[in-house]
Amino acid sequence: MSADSKPPTKYGVVLFPGFQSLGVFGPCDLLATHSRFNALSIVMLSSTLDPVPSNLLPADGCGQRVVPTHTFDNAPDDIEVLIVPGGPGTRDDDAIAPAMAYVKKVFPKLRYLLTVCTGSALVAKTGLLDGKRATTNKKSFKWATCQGLEVNWVLEARWVTDGNIWTSSGISAGIDMTLAFMAAVYGEGAAQSVADHSEYRRDTDAGDDPFAQFAGA
Amino acid sequence: MSADSKPPTKYGVVLFPGFQSLGVFGPCDLLATHSRFNALSIVMLSSTLDPVPSNLLPADGCGQRVVPTHTFDNAPDDIEVLIVPGGPGTRDDDAIAPAMAYVKKVFPKLRYLLTVCTGSALVAKTGLLDGKRATTNKKSFKWATCQGLEVNWVLEARWVTDGNIWTSSGISAGIDMTLAFMAAVYGEGAAQSVADHSEYRRDTDAGDDPFAQFAGA
Repeated sequence: MSADSKPPTKYGVVLFPGFQSLGVFGPCDLLATHSRFNALSIVMLSSTLDPVPSNLLPADGCGQRVVPTHTFDNAPDDIEVLIVPGGPGTRDDDAIAPAMAYVKKVFPKLRYLLTVCTGSALVAKTGLLDGKRATTNKKSFKWATCQGLEVNWVLEARWVTDGNIWTSSGISAGIDMTLAFMAAVYGEGAAQSVADHSEYRRDTDAGDDPFAQFAGA
Repeated sequence: MSADSKPPTKYGVVLFPGFQSLGVFGPCDLLATHSRFNALSIVMLSSTLDPVPSNLLPADGCGQRVVPTHTFDNAPDDIEVLIVPGGPGTRDDDAIAPAMAYVKKVFPKLRYLLTVCTGSALVAKTGLLDGKRATTNKKSFKWATCQGLEVNWVLEARWVTDGNIWTSSGISAGIDMTLAFMAAVYGEGAAQSVADHSEYRRDTDAGDDPFAQFAGA
Protein backbone atom coordinates (compact mmCIF):
# COMPACT_ATOMS: atom_id res chain seq x y z
CA MET A 1 0.00 0.00 0.00
CA SER A 2 1.51 3.33 -0.98
CA ALA A 3 1.53 6.16 1.53
CA ASP A 4 -1.06 8.00 -0.50
CA SER A 5 -3.51 5.13 -0.41
CA LYS A 6 -3.77 5.31 3.38
CA PRO A 7 -6.70 7.35 4.59
CA PRO A 8 -5.70 10.88 5.61
CA THR A 9 -5.15 11.68 9.31
CA LYS A 10 -3.70 15.20 9.23
CA TYR A 11 -6.21 18.03 8.95
CA GLY A 12 -5.86 21.79 8.93
CA VAL A 13 -8.57 24.43 9.29
CA VAL A 14 -8.19 27.97 8.00
CA LEU A 15 -9.43 30.66 10.38
CA PHE A 16 -9.99 34.34 9.60
CA PRO A 17 -11.91 37.08 11.42
CA GLY A 18 -15.62 36.57 10.79
CA PHE A 19 -15.50 32.82 10.08
CA GLN A 20 -18.79 30.95 10.55
CA SER A 21 -18.48 28.89 13.70
CA LEU A 22 -20.82 26.06 12.69
CA GLY A 23 -18.92 25.77 9.41
CA VAL A 24 -15.78 25.04 11.43
CA PHE A 25 -17.15 23.08 14.38
CA GLY A 26 -19.56 20.91 12.43
CA PRO A 27 -16.69 19.25 10.54
CA CYS A 28 -14.21 19.46 13.47
CA ASP A 29 -16.62 17.83 15.91
CA LEU A 30 -17.33 14.96 13.52
CA LEU A 31 -13.59 14.44 13.01
CA ALA A 32 -13.01 14.53 16.77
CA THR A 33 -15.64 11.84 17.24
CA HIS A 34 -14.04 9.69 14.55
CA SER A 35 -10.67 10.31 16.22
CA ARG A 36 -11.77 8.32 19.27
CA PHE A 37 -11.39 5.23 17.10
CA ASN A 38 -8.82 6.35 14.53
CA ALA A 39 -6.46 9.07 15.73
CA LEU A 40 -6.56 12.26 13.68
CA SER A 41 -4.87 15.59 14.17
CA ILE A 42 -6.48 18.94 13.42
CA VAL A 43 -4.41 22.12 13.40
CA MET A 44 -6.08 25.53 13.45
CA LEU A 45 -4.32 28.05 11.22
CA SER A 46 -4.48 31.82 11.04
CA SER A 47 -2.29 34.80 10.22
CA THR A 48 -1.19 35.16 13.86
CA LEU A 49 -1.66 33.15 17.04
CA ASP A 50 -4.14 35.70 18.38
CA PRO A 51 -7.62 34.30 19.05
CA VAL A 52 -9.81 34.64 15.96
CA PRO A 53 -13.38 35.94 16.33
CA SER A 54 -16.18 34.00 14.69
CA ASN A 55 -19.27 35.27 12.97
CA LEU A 56 -20.12 38.78 13.94
CA LEU A 57 -17.27 40.34 15.84
CA PRO A 58 -17.25 40.07 19.64
CA ALA A 59 -18.01 43.79 19.71
CA ASP A 60 -21.37 42.84 18.29
CA GLY A 61 -22.00 40.51 21.17
CA CYS A 62 -22.30 37.19 19.39
CA GLY A 63 -18.84 36.13 18.30
CA GLN A 64 -16.68 33.55 19.97
CA ARG A 65 -12.89 33.54 19.83
CA VAL A 66 -10.93 30.45 18.85
CA VAL A 67 -7.20 30.03 19.45
CA PRO A 68 -5.07 29.03 16.44
CA THR A 69 -2.44 26.34 16.94
CA HIS A 70 -0.17 27.63 14.16
CA THR A 71 0.25 30.62 11.89
CA PHE A 72 0.08 30.26 8.13
CA ASP A 73 3.84 30.87 8.10
CA ASN A 74 4.71 28.04 10.49
CA ALA A 75 1.98 25.57 9.56
CA PRO A 76 2.98 21.90 9.53
CA ASP A 77 4.06 20.92 6.03
CA ASP A 78 2.33 17.54 6.14
CA ILE A 79 -1.31 18.66 6.24
CA GLU A 80 -3.27 16.30 4.02
CA VAL A 81 -6.75 17.81 4.19
CA LEU A 82 -7.40 21.54 4.40
CA ILE A 83 -10.83 22.84 5.43
CA VAL A 84 -11.83 26.38 4.48
CA PRO A 85 -14.97 27.66 6.21
CA GLY A 86 -17.18 30.51 5.08
CA GLY A 87 -18.79 33.31 6.99
CA PRO A 88 -19.26 37.07 6.83
CA GLY A 89 -15.48 37.52 6.92
CA THR A 90 -15.17 36.14 3.39
CA ARG A 91 -16.57 39.46 2.15
CA ASP A 92 -13.68 41.37 3.72
CA ASP A 93 -10.73 41.21 1.32
CA ASP A 94 -8.26 42.39 3.94
CA ALA A 95 -9.48 39.80 6.46
CA ILE A 96 -9.04 36.89 4.08
CA ALA A 97 -5.92 37.94 2.16
CA PRO A 98 -3.51 35.87 4.32
CA ALA A 99 -5.83 32.85 4.16
CA MET A 100 -6.10 33.16 0.37
CA ALA A 101 -2.33 33.34 -0.01
CA TYR A 102 -1.87 30.27 2.21
CA VAL A 103 -4.51 28.20 0.40
CA LYS A 104 -3.00 29.04 -2.98
CA LYS A 105 0.52 28.18 -1.79
CA VAL A 106 -0.32 24.91 -0.04
CA PHE A 107 -2.88 23.50 -2.46
CA PRO A 108 -0.39 21.57 -4.64
CA LYS A 109 0.78 19.63 -1.55
CA LEU A 110 -2.71 18.77 -0.28
CA ARG A 111 -4.47 15.50 -0.85
CA TYR A 112 -7.89 17.12 -0.38
CA LEU A 113 -9.33 20.61 -0.14
CA LEU A 114 -12.74 20.96 1.52
CA THR A 115 -14.76 24.17 1.68
CA VAL A 116 -17.92 24.97 3.61
CA CYS A 117 -20.41 27.70 2.67
CA THR A 118 -18.73 30.81 1.24
CA GLY A 119 -15.34 29.23 1.87
CA SER A 120 -15.65 28.31 -1.81
CA ALA A 121 -15.87 32.03 -2.66
CA LEU A 122 -12.59 32.60 -0.82
CA VAL A 123 -10.94 29.77 -2.75
CA ALA A 124 -12.53 30.89 -6.02
CA LYS A 125 -10.83 34.27 -5.65
CA THR A 126 -7.45 32.49 -5.72
CA GLY A 127 -8.26 30.97 -9.12
CA LEU A 128 -7.94 27.40 -7.84
CA LEU A 129 -11.54 26.58 -8.77
CA ASP A 130 -11.31 27.88 -12.34
CA GLY A 131 -12.77 25.29 -14.70
CA LYS A 132 -13.96 23.16 -11.83
CA ARG A 133 -17.43 22.31 -10.55
CA ALA A 134 -18.23 23.79 -7.12
CA THR A 135 -21.10 24.97 -4.97
CA THR A 136 -21.56 27.52 -2.20
CA ASN A 137 -24.05 29.14 0.18
CA LYS A 138 -27.44 29.58 -1.47
CA LYS A 139 -28.63 32.82 0.17
CA SER A 140 -25.25 34.30 -0.91
CA PHE A 141 -25.18 32.53 -4.27
CA LYS A 142 -25.16 35.65 -6.45
CA TRP A 143 -22.32 37.27 -4.55
CA ALA A 144 -20.30 34.10 -4.11
CA THR A 145 -20.48 33.06 -7.75
CA CYS A 146 -19.24 36.50 -8.79
CA GLN A 147 -16.00 35.77 -6.90
CA GLY A 148 -15.04 33.19 -9.53
CA LEU A 149 -16.41 33.80 -13.02
CA GLU A 150 -14.53 30.83 -14.49
CA VAL A 151 -15.92 28.37 -11.96
CA ASN A 152 -18.66 25.95 -13.03
CA TRP A 153 -20.97 26.77 -10.14
CA VAL A 154 -23.63 24.17 -9.36
CA LEU A 155 -26.82 25.68 -7.98
CA GLU A 156 -28.69 22.61 -6.83
CA ALA A 157 -26.26 20.63 -4.69
CA ARG A 158 -25.76 19.87 -1.00
CA TRP A 159 -22.11 19.39 -1.92
CA VAL A 160 -20.01 18.93 -5.07
CA THR A 161 -16.79 17.01 -5.70
CA ASP A 162 -14.38 17.73 -8.52
CA GLY A 163 -11.17 15.77 -8.32
CA ASN A 164 -9.74 16.31 -4.85
CA ILE A 165 -11.82 19.40 -4.14
CA TRP A 166 -15.03 19.11 -2.14
CA THR A 167 -17.26 22.18 -1.80
CA SER A 168 -20.44 22.34 0.25
CA SER A 169 -23.48 24.54 0.25
CA GLY A 170 -24.26 26.83 3.22
CA ILE A 171 -23.21 26.34 6.84
CA SER A 172 -24.82 23.07 7.98
CA ALA A 173 -24.24 21.47 4.56
CA GLY A 174 -20.64 21.17 5.72
CA ILE A 175 -21.79 18.48 8.14
CA ASP A 176 -23.26 16.34 5.37
CA MET A 177 -20.25 16.94 3.13
CA THR A 178 -17.85 15.94 5.91
CA LEU A 179 -19.77 12.74 6.55
CA ALA A 180 -19.72 11.97 2.82
CA PHE A 181 -15.99 12.68 2.77
CA MET A 182 -15.47 10.39 5.76
CA ALA A 183 -17.48 7.69 3.98
CA ALA A 184 -15.20 8.08 0.95
CA VAL A 185 -11.91 7.91 2.84
CA TYR A 186 -12.73 5.86 5.99
CA GLY A 187 -15.69 3.83 4.74
CA GLU A 188 -19.43 4.10 5.01
CA GLY A 189 -19.52 2.29 8.35
CA ALA A 190 -17.18 4.79 9.95
CA ALA A 191 -19.20 7.73 8.65
CA GLN A 192 -22.51 6.30 9.84
CA SER A 193 -21.01 5.52 13.24
CA VAL A 194 -19.97 9.15 13.64
CA ALA A 195 -23.42 10.32 12.53
CA ASP A 196 -25.04 7.97 15.06
CA HIS A 197 -22.76 9.19 17.87
CA SER A 198 -23.57 12.76 16.87
CA GLU A 199 -27.29 11.91 16.63
CA TYR A 200 -27.31 13.50 13.21
CA ARG A 201 -29.73 12.56 10.47
CA ARG A 202 -27.54 12.58 7.37
CA ASP A 203 -28.45 13.90 4.00
CA THR A 204 -26.56 11.39 1.85
CA ASP A 205 -27.74 12.68 -1.53
CA ALA A 206 -25.31 15.33 -2.81
CA GLY A 207 -27.88 16.54 -5.32
CA ASP A 208 -30.80 16.96 -2.93
CA ASP A 209 -30.84 20.65 -2.11
CA PRO A 210 -34.07 22.22 -0.87
CA PHE A 211 -32.22 25.48 -0.25
CA ALA A 212 -31.40 26.13 -3.91
CA GLN A 213 -34.73 27.96 -4.06
CA PHE A 214 -33.19 30.78 -2.03
CA ALA A 215 -30.44 31.55 -4.53
CA GLY A 216 -32.46 34.22 -6.27
CA ALA A 217 -33.78 35.77 -3.07
CA MET B 1 -45.69 44.57 28.33
CA SER B 2 -43.73 43.51 31.38
CA ALA B 3 -39.97 43.16 31.14
CA ASP B 4 -40.30 39.41 31.45
CA SER B 5 -42.65 39.13 28.50
CA LYS B 6 -40.00 40.49 26.15
CA PRO B 7 -38.07 37.79 24.32
CA PRO B 8 -34.68 37.11 25.91
CA THR B 9 -31.56 38.71 24.40
CA LYS B 10 -28.84 37.88 26.93
CA TYR B 11 -27.28 34.43 26.65
CA GLY B 12 -24.51 32.71 28.53
CA VAL B 13 -22.69 29.49 27.63
CA VAL B 14 -20.92 27.33 30.21
CA LEU B 15 -17.51 26.04 29.11
CA PHE B 16 -15.41 23.35 30.80
CA PRO B 17 -12.45 21.28 29.60
CA GLY B 18 -13.74 18.57 27.30
CA PHE B 19 -16.93 20.32 26.18
CA GLN B 20 -18.42 19.10 22.89
CA SER B 21 -17.78 21.77 20.28
CA LEU B 22 -20.83 21.13 18.10
CA GLY B 23 -22.99 21.27 21.23
CA VAL B 24 -21.76 24.82 21.78
CA PHE B 25 -21.40 26.11 18.25
CA GLY B 26 -24.62 24.66 16.86
CA PRO B 27 -26.72 26.81 19.21
CA CYS B 28 -24.28 29.77 19.18
CA ASP B 29 -24.15 29.93 15.40
CA LEU B 30 -27.94 29.90 15.12
CA LEU B 31 -28.17 32.67 17.70
CA ALA B 32 -25.50 34.67 15.87
CA THR B 33 -27.51 34.38 12.65
CA HIS B 34 -30.68 35.52 14.42
CA SER B 35 -28.66 38.36 15.93
CA ARG B 36 -28.24 39.94 12.50
CA PHE B 37 -31.90 40.90 12.73
CA ASN B 38 -32.46 41.09 16.50
CA ALA B 39 -29.35 41.89 18.51
CA LEU B 40 -28.40 39.26 21.05
CA SER B 41 -25.41 38.94 23.33
CA ILE B 42 -23.66 35.68 24.16
CA VAL B 43 -21.09 35.51 26.94
CA MET B 44 -18.78 32.52 27.28
CA LEU B 45 -18.20 31.51 30.89
CA SER B 46 -15.59 29.34 32.54
CA SER B 47 -13.66 29.01 35.78
CA THR B 48 -10.81 31.18 34.48
CA LEU B 49 -10.22 33.29 31.37
CA ASP B 50 -7.78 30.72 30.00
CA PRO B 51 -8.82 29.19 26.65
CA VAL B 52 -10.93 26.08 27.21
CA PRO B 53 -10.20 22.94 25.17
CA SER B 54 -13.09 21.21 23.44
CA ASN B 55 -13.68 17.52 23.01
CA LEU B 56 -10.56 15.49 23.35
CA LEU B 57 -7.78 17.56 24.81
CA PRO B 58 -5.46 19.38 22.39
CA ALA B 59 -2.77 16.90 23.43
CA ASP B 60 -4.85 14.30 21.65
CA GLY B 61 -4.74 16.33 18.47
CA CYS B 62 -8.39 17.08 17.91
CA GLY B 63 -9.45 19.69 20.43
CA GLN B 64 -9.95 23.35 19.73
CA ARG B 65 -9.54 26.07 22.34
CA VAL B 66 -12.20 28.71 22.90
CA VAL B 67 -11.62 31.92 24.84
CA PRO B 68 -14.09 32.70 27.65
CA THR B 69 -15.37 36.25 27.95
CA HIS B 70 -16.00 36.04 31.72
CA THR B 71 -15.26 33.79 34.65
CA PHE B 72 -18.10 32.23 36.65
CA ASP B 73 -17.16 34.64 39.46
CA ASN B 74 -17.51 37.80 37.38
CA ALA B 75 -20.29 36.70 35.03
CA PRO B 76 -22.85 39.37 34.12
CA ASP B 77 -25.78 39.15 36.55
CA ASP B 78 -28.40 39.70 33.87
CA ILE B 79 -27.99 36.52 31.86
CA GLU B 80 -31.47 35.35 30.84
CA VAL B 81 -30.71 32.08 29.07
CA LEU B 82 -27.93 29.74 30.13
CA ILE B 83 -26.73 27.01 27.77
CA VAL B 84 -24.91 23.99 29.22
CA PRO B 85 -23.21 21.76 26.63
CA GLY B 86 -22.20 18.14 27.05
CA GLY B 87 -19.07 16.33 26.05
CA PRO B 88 -16.51 13.92 27.48
CA GLY B 89 -15.61 16.49 30.14
CA THR B 90 -18.95 15.93 31.87
CA ARG B 91 -17.54 12.61 33.13
CA ASP B 92 -14.71 14.40 34.95
CA ASP B 93 -16.05 15.60 38.29
CA ASP B 94 -13.10 17.93 38.88
CA ALA B 95 -13.45 19.49 35.43
CA ILE B 96 -17.13 20.31 35.88
CA ALA B 97 -17.24 21.22 39.58
CA PRO B 98 -16.97 25.01 38.98
CA ALA B 99 -19.61 24.83 36.22
CA MET B 100 -21.96 22.82 38.46
CA ALA B 101 -21.59 25.33 41.30
CA TYR B 102 -22.28 28.23 38.94
CA VAL B 103 -25.35 26.61 37.37
CA LYS B 104 -26.81 25.82 40.78
CA LYS B 105 -26.18 29.35 42.04
CA VAL B 106 -27.49 31.23 39.00
CA PHE B 107 -30.50 29.05 38.15
CA PRO B 108 -33.04 30.95 40.30
CA LYS B 109 -32.23 34.16 38.38
CA LEU B 110 -32.45 32.60 34.91
CA ARG B 111 -35.45 32.79 32.65
CA TYR B 112 -34.41 29.64 30.77
CA LEU B 113 -31.89 26.86 31.17
CA LEU B 114 -30.96 24.88 28.04
CA THR B 115 -28.78 21.79 27.98
CA VAL B 116 -27.31 19.89 25.05
CA CYS B 117 -26.28 16.23 25.13
CA THR B 118 -24.74 15.20 28.47
CA GLY B 119 -25.03 18.78 29.68
CA SER B 120 -28.21 17.45 31.31
CA ALA B 121 -26.08 14.96 33.28
CA LEU B 122 -24.00 17.86 34.60
CA VAL B 123 -27.15 19.73 35.64
CA ALA B 124 -28.73 16.55 37.04
CA LYS B 125 -25.79 16.18 39.41
CA THR B 126 -26.70 19.56 40.93
CA GLY B 127 -30.18 18.28 41.81
CA LEU B 128 -31.89 20.97 39.71
CA LEU B 129 -33.58 18.37 37.50
CA ASP B 130 -35.01 16.29 40.37
CA GLY B 131 -38.67 15.57 39.72
CA LYS B 132 -38.46 17.07 36.23
CA ARG B 133 -38.67 15.53 32.79
CA ALA B 134 -35.41 15.65 30.82
CA THR B 135 -33.46 13.88 28.10
CA THR B 136 -29.81 13.38 27.23
CA ASN B 137 -27.36 11.72 24.84
CA LYS B 138 -28.60 8.29 23.76
CA LYS B 139 -25.28 6.43 23.38
CA SER B 140 -24.48 7.66 26.92
CA PHE B 141 -28.01 7.19 28.24
CA LYS B 142 -27.19 4.61 30.93
CA TRP B 143 -24.36 6.65 32.39
CA ALA B 144 -26.13 9.99 32.09
CA THR B 145 -29.35 8.85 33.71
CA CYS B 146 -27.35 7.49 36.67
CA GLN B 147 -26.20 11.06 37.36
CA GLY B 148 -29.72 11.99 38.49
CA LEU B 149 -31.79 9.15 39.93
CA GLU B 150 -34.71 11.46 40.79
CA VAL B 151 -34.99 12.84 37.26
CA ASN B 152 -37.84 11.64 35.04
CA TRP B 153 -35.61 10.77 32.10
CA VAL B 154 -37.32 10.54 28.73
CA LEU B 155 -35.72 8.00 26.42
CA GLU B 156 -37.44 8.74 23.15
CA ALA B 157 -37.13 12.49 22.61
CA ARG B 158 -35.15 14.83 20.40
CA TRP B 159 -35.65 17.37 23.17
CA VAL B 160 -37.81 17.80 26.28
CA THR B 161 -39.21 20.88 27.98
CA ASP B 162 -40.26 21.03 31.63
CA GLY B 163 -41.12 24.51 32.80
CA ASN B 164 -38.24 26.77 31.90
CA ILE B 165 -35.78 23.93 31.41
CA TRP B 166 -35.07 22.59 27.93
CA THR B 167 -32.88 19.51 27.55
CA SER B 168 -31.82 17.98 24.25
CA SER B 169 -30.61 14.61 23.17
CA GLY B 170 -27.05 14.12 21.85
CA ILE B 171 -24.85 16.70 20.15
CA SER B 172 -26.68 17.74 16.98
CA ALA B 173 -30.06 17.52 18.73
CA GLY B 174 -29.04 20.83 20.30
CA ILE B 175 -29.53 22.44 16.91
CA ASP B 176 -33.15 21.29 16.68
CA MET B 177 -33.81 22.22 20.31
CA THR B 178 -32.36 25.69 19.80
CA LEU B 179 -34.54 26.25 16.73
CA ALA B 180 -37.59 25.08 18.70
CA PHE B 181 -36.60 27.41 21.53
CA MET B 182 -36.22 30.29 19.07
CA ALA B 183 -39.64 29.47 17.63
CA ALA B 184 -41.09 29.62 21.17
CA VAL B 185 -39.51 32.94 22.14
CA TYR B 186 -39.02 34.77 18.82
CA GLY B 187 -41.74 33.16 16.72
CA GLU B 188 -41.85 30.38 14.17
CA GLY B 189 -40.96 32.71 11.30
CA ALA B 190 -37.75 33.80 12.99
CA ALA B 191 -36.73 30.21 13.69
CA GLN B 192 -37.42 29.07 10.13
CA SER B 193 -35.52 32.05 8.74
CA VAL B 194 -32.46 31.07 10.77
CA ALA B 195 -32.79 27.45 9.64
CA ASP B 196 -33.03 28.60 6.02
CA HIS B 197 -29.97 30.83 6.36
CA SER B 198 -28.13 27.93 7.97
CA GLU B 199 -29.39 25.55 5.25
CA TYR B 200 -30.51 23.22 8.01
CA ARG B 201 -33.38 20.76 7.64
CA ARG B 202 -35.13 21.03 10.98
CA ASP B 203 -36.53 18.19 12.99
CA THR B 204 -39.56 19.95 14.46
CA ASP B 205 -41.04 16.95 16.28
CA ALA B 206 -39.63 16.79 19.82
CA GLY B 207 -40.77 13.18 20.15
CA ASP B 208 -39.25 11.86 16.93
CA ASP B 209 -35.99 10.24 17.99
CA PRO B 210 -34.43 7.60 15.76
CA PHE B 211 -31.39 7.49 18.05
CA ALA B 212 -33.27 6.17 21.10
CA GLN B 213 -32.48 2.70 19.75
CA PHE B 214 -28.83 3.23 20.77
CA ALA B 215 -29.61 3.75 24.46
CA GLY B 216 -29.09 0.12 25.31
CA ALA B 217 -25.98 -0.27 23.19
